[in-house]
Amino acid sequence: MVGLGPGGPAGRTAEAVERLAQATDLVGYRPYLTQAGPLAGHQQAHPFPNRQESARAAFALDLAAAGRDVVVVSSGDPGIFAMATAVVEALHEDLMVGRWRDVEVTILPGVTAASAAAARIGAPLGHDLCLISLSDVLKPWEVIECRLDAAAGADFVLALYNPLSRHRPWQLGRALEILARHRPEETPVTLARNVGRDGETVRATTLGALDPTEVDMRTVVIVGSTTTRQFTDATGRDWVYTPRHYPAVPPAG
Amino acid sequence: MVGLGPGGPAGRTAEAVERLAQATDLVGYRPYLTQAGPLAGHQQAHPFPNRQESARAAFALDLAAAGRDVVVVSSGDPGIFAMATAVVEALHEDLMVGRWRDVEVTILPGVTAASAAAARIGAPLGHDLCLISLSDVLKPWEVIECRLDAAAGADFVLALYNPLSRHRPWQLGRALEILARHRPEETPVTLARNVGRDGETVRATTLGALDPTEVDMRTVVIVGSTTTRQFTDATGRDWVYTPRHYPAVPPAG
Repeated sequence: MVGLGPGGPAGRTAEAVERLAQATDLVGYRPYLTQAGPLAGHQQAHPFPNRQESARAAFALDLAAAGRDVVVVSSGDPGIFAMATAVVEALHEDLMVGRWRDVEVTILPGVTAASAAAARIGAPLGHDLCLISLSDVLKPWEVIECRLDAAAGADFVLALYNPLSRHRPWQLGRALEILARHRPEETPVTLARNVGRDGETVRATTLGALDPTEVDMRTVVIVGSTTTRQFTDATGRDWVYTPRHYPAVPPAG
Repeated sequence: MVGLGPGGPAGRTAEAVERLAQATDLVGYRPYLTQAGPLAGHQQAHPFPNRQESARAAFALDLAAAGRDVVVVSSGDPGIFAMATAVVEALHEDLMVGRWRDVEVTILPGVTAASAAAARIGAPLGHDLCLISLSDVLKPWEVIECRLDAAAGADFVLALYNPLSRHRPWQLGRALEILARHRPEETPVTLARNVGRDGETVRATTLGALDPTEVDMRTVVIVGSTTTRQFTDATGRDWVYTPRHYPAVPPAG
């Protein structure tokens, strides 16, 4: 498994670039195969639709068991809301069967979307933080609400992955309502879309001003804690950061 | 600012490698300058002791304002418990003064320690997670306790940074007590030390079996959620992963 990082090869690790070049077969969600770049002559791509992670994992392990040199690609880091867990779960389920026993699995980490987004706007993740996926396809929405409430109450910075999609139009709005119980309207929010890719946009807004319809599936939303600050420098560039010092009072919430 | 990733150049992004090669001056905590690799003939290193982040930021910005091409190095990702926030805070404080007004600051993200550690053992970060620094040098210990309790109660996976040092010997033990209120003894725990560097060790244990004296400052501790699983494959390799599916009941806690 290879993490592609946020976009092109500039943000990819050297070991990831090397493994991608060596593989005979690339397996992944179609946009991530495009992100991985053009194939070499000896390479074959196996695109999958979104959400079929278990089928993708089994397909890749079957190919590897048949002797191919297979890379499963994930955008960002394969260990964070991506393919690594589906592949390891498949290995676990295969323990008594053994059809993939001889497959050697290596996971190469990548720069996750929250780190890439944060770097563009300053250092909003400078303190304790939570990464939460707002997708309720594989977990009950009640669990997500409970986590948002707990994380906001304890004054974590939040990075929201998969904030919205065509099939999940209301989840982000509901999440922002929960966060607004604990945070003032002026709380800095960073919206980072397509970081490292064509059409990248990264901008600072606030919890009160954020309109969920500006956000889509390719956006990471970083909501500051009560100590997160925002300023505009002399050149007009916006900065957001969360100081390392935390005041000597327990967080409100 | 450049994130070195977990260890050597193999886990570093191409843009980070390129910036490091171009810089005239490298500023950082001494072990990170060693990690960055040997200097080229045109380069000068400026090592700093630990904890002097504000002084390090001001020194680097002064050098850059004087026309040097300066890189501030951080291990992992500069935005996560590292130098980016100190530099951006310095820029904020300089807003009315303007002595660093003409310095152009770019932040290049890196693979953070939790991602690198997780990749070695499987996919323990496969679900919603919190990154918490156990260092109470810059924040009150009460805030850390509150966050550990909230994160464990809402069934997040936890990645604990700076778990222990010579000057902070009891913090990890106390943190584990708090987590044990919410999690069974069998909860999988991953201890990852020196990932990507000489003397790397990554191993799986459990919340009940973990002995804090096995842990040091160079270790990242990943504590699973109630759904995190652990198994040993036919070759004797340990795996830990957190499935993407979450059961249809609210988390206990």
